[in-house]
Amino acid sequence: MHWTKEAIKALDFKFRLNLINSITGIKPANLIGTISESGTTNLAIFSSVVHLGSDPALIGFIVRPTGEIPRHTYQNIIANGLYTINHIHESFIERAHYTSAKFASEESEFDMCKLTEEYLAGWKAPFVKESKLKIAMEFMESIPLKRNNTIMIIGQVAHIFIDDIAVNDKGRIDLAALNDVGLSGLNRYYRLEEIAEHPYARVNELPDF
Amino acid sequence: MHWTKEAIKALDFKFRLNLINSITGIKPANLIGTISESGTTNLAIFSSVVHLGSDPALIGFIVRPTGEIPRHTYQNIIANGLYTINHIHESFIERAHYTSAKFASEESEFDMCKLTEEYLAGWKAPFVKESKLKIAMEFMESIPLKRNNTIMIIGQVAHIFIDDIAVNDKGRIDLAALNDVGLSGLNRYYRLEEIAEHPYARVNELPDF
Repeated sequence: MHWTKEAIKALDFKFRLNLINSITGIKPANLIGTISESGTTNLAIFSSVVHLGSDPALIGFIVRPTGEIPRHTYQNIIANGLYTINHIHESFIERAHYTSAKFASEESEFDMCKLTEEYLAGWKAPFVKESKLKIAMEFMESIPLKRNNTIMIIGQVAHIFIDDIAVNDKGRIDLAALNDVGLSGLNRYYRLEEIAEHPYARVNELPDF
Repeated sequence: MHWTKEAIKALDFKFRLNLINSITGIKPANLIGTISESGTTNLAIFSSVVHLGSDPALIGFIVRPTGEIPRHTYQNIIANGLYTINHIHESFIERAHYTSAKFASEESEFDMCKLTEEYLAGWKAPFVKESKLKIAMEFMESIPLKRNNTIMIIGQVAHIFIDDIAVNDKGRIDLAALNDVGLSGLNRYYRLEEIAEHPYARVNELPDF
């Protein structure tokens, strides 16, 4: 199948939403936890979390603050500068998915979706107890992408908590051992099965393809 | 295991590189194709491709232009504004992985890694013939992330080419049918198995968790 720019523009709204949300490939499935100034916790699923650098350890994600869903996440991060990123596993895909419903601001997705708040290392923003890889994030910068009214939130990693079994002696994380899932588009979830590991690529060590 | 910000800073360089590149979860595995003004093609693996919006259809990715690898990709995009994004499948993971080796600027990764250039819809930048999901991209904007000297490249989707079998009547793409792979850290590749599909989440239609 082939779509041009004009054909994409002319597509049915929902078809285009599904298609364009899928074409970048598999996406990470993470829950971002925050807390409001009045103490209401918020939890929202995001598929746009992206690695920006290792030293300093920086992570970005995209929010659409004019949209209805990530609004509380954005407001809370701007208000107090703290958030958490929590991997989603097979055991709680459905509960994580429904954090995207439009709950009222006084309702916590933790309560509504039966996920458990956890507080670690004195961090004010809530972690997801069910998650086996949790990151405490310090807000650094908000970069407006004016072209489509989205915002890239950049934060620095303040704490990492991971199940021992999933980290090897080189610092590599076994996502399959964590039962991590990936996401395609807005609603399809995938299990991960490791099938290859390749060394750092050097020009004088090319394999015989 | 628990690492604080200070502990992360103090980690061995390679351990930190592996760890921080893995903590965001599964990443999409894409090859970005470009062509220089002198006509040399370039192909590079990227795991930072991220959906920005559906209408207009915008996609971002992160480059480190001071680094040695994505330099040619960045230079070519800035020079002529055209690039392609091509999904990586199980059948050519190793060849895709080795595009990250530091080839000289006059060497094309297509030749060195035995992948096939393809030209479609009159697009000047090369596609990867072996890929079953290919996107022609028009460069829109380059946003410097000064905090760590990286750049977010934003482009608009100009053409999408997908194997018919992988798109359903709602516009959803079956990444498993494409034999797409995901990437963790810098070198672990994962097969995808679809395990759940959930509807658009509405507060008055919450399941009985």
